[in-house]
Amino acid sequence: MEIKRIVVKENLFAKNDEIAEENRNILKKHKIFSLNIMGGPGAGKTSILEKTVAGLKNRGISCGVIEGDIAGMFDSERISVFGVPVIQINTGGACHLEAMMVKKGIENLPLDEIKVVFIENVGNLVCPAEFKIGVDCNVTVASITEGEEKPVKYPLMYSISDVVLVNKIDLISAVEFDINRFTAFLDEIKKDIKIIPVSGKTGKNIDDFIQYIVERIL
Amino acid sequence: MEIKRIVVKENLFAKNDEIAEENRNILKKHKIFSLNIMGGPGAGKTSILEKTVAGLKNRGISCGVIEGDIAGMFDSERISVFGVPVIQINTGGACHLEAMMVKKGIENLPLDEIKVVFIENVGNLVCPAEFKIGVDCNVTVASITEGEEKPVKYPLMYSISDVVLVNKIDLISAVEFDINRFTAFLDEIKKDIKIIPVSGKTGKNIDDFIQYIVERIL
Repeated sequence: MEIKRIVVKENLFAKNDEIAEENRNILKKHKIFSLNIMGGPGAGKTSILEKTVAGLKNRGISCGVIEGDIAGMFDSERISVFGVPVIQINTGGACHLEAMMVKKGIENLPLDEIKVVFIENVGNLVCPAEFKIGVDCNVTVASITEGEEKPVKYPLMYSISDVVLVNKIDLISAVEFDINRFTAFLDEIKKDIKIIPVSGKTGKNIDDFIQYIVERIL
Repeated sequence: MEIKRIVVKENLFAKNDEIAEENRNILKKHKIFSLNIMGGPGAGKTSILEKTVAGLKNRGISCGVIEGDIAGMFDSERISVFGVPVIQINTGGACHLEAMMVKKGIENLPLDEIKVVFIENVGNLVCPAEFKIGVDCNVTVASITEGEEKPVKYPLMYSISDVVLVNKIDLISAVEFDINRFTAFLDEIKKDIKIIPVSGKTGKNIDDFIQYIVERIL
């Protein structure tokens, strides 16, 4: 008798990757530049998004936002204030966004009217890195309050990142954080990564992140 | 023909719970009080442990520490300075400790010589809450830099916690954080939880945490 082998994890990832590819194609077709915003809980992902969305709006560039959270509407309420379309996805316990969840989000955005999509992932420095969602750019938000050695403690997340936003630099005088030590640790994990020190609170250097996005718009 | 049903997740949890119960029995037999220290990346779990381990030592109470990290030896090196037995567990990618990993840690500690075991979980506010490891007390470390609404955004973690250490209160003048708002959110998730505001950096109120542990030693 034939033995059927069920390889759960590989199959799960393969199916996810397939849908991620569909997301990528939909976004490409509409000439939308897409970013997956990741980071630990409270690293400041939403604060950075608030400032970035407002800055893009000032430049006449329209965007949409997909907010991923286990529970609650906090982040989407914060972003909707800026008059951009926001879709809240509640994972109901899951520690990351999967491509299928993001697909549902994309299908609910006015794709012909926007140039940029931000997808804020669940606050978690581990699991979101394992699941492709079909974006152009992976962004990790690192808070200086987390310490300098996080890239080597959470290597997968940093190894898949295109941009690292070193956030909360407004707290630099209150926190022991040496950005050179941080970048040296990051260098052990991935070279050629764009690092922008920012403050989501004061807005410092958010323009550099906006400029990066503008240059990459399709 | 009989159809065999494989319920992967339930079986995984059942096996884990079984081993967690074994851990609990081993620790109980040796009259060791055990704590699972959880929290997001950089919430300050290790800093609190440094001060707590030193404080217990001053009171003549010996302890052991199991450090869980995806990669690296940073935390165990920091703790070993205090002259206590430390076991580093590297999960090699996994986002949480499982009971089997903790069992290996326990088996390598001098159980007849210690009264308290701290198990520092992987920095993650989601997944560690899903896996029992067989301890007496679940502790969540929340940093005030993470914001006030985290209990409702990460409800499972807070719902299983016995103690919440609100850390980094030394930064209170630099960060907008209202502990009453935090406790109100926490109250939505779980009532009757012990909350101790602390600073792992300055050591403020760590004595209250130590006193709590001393009262619970078997």
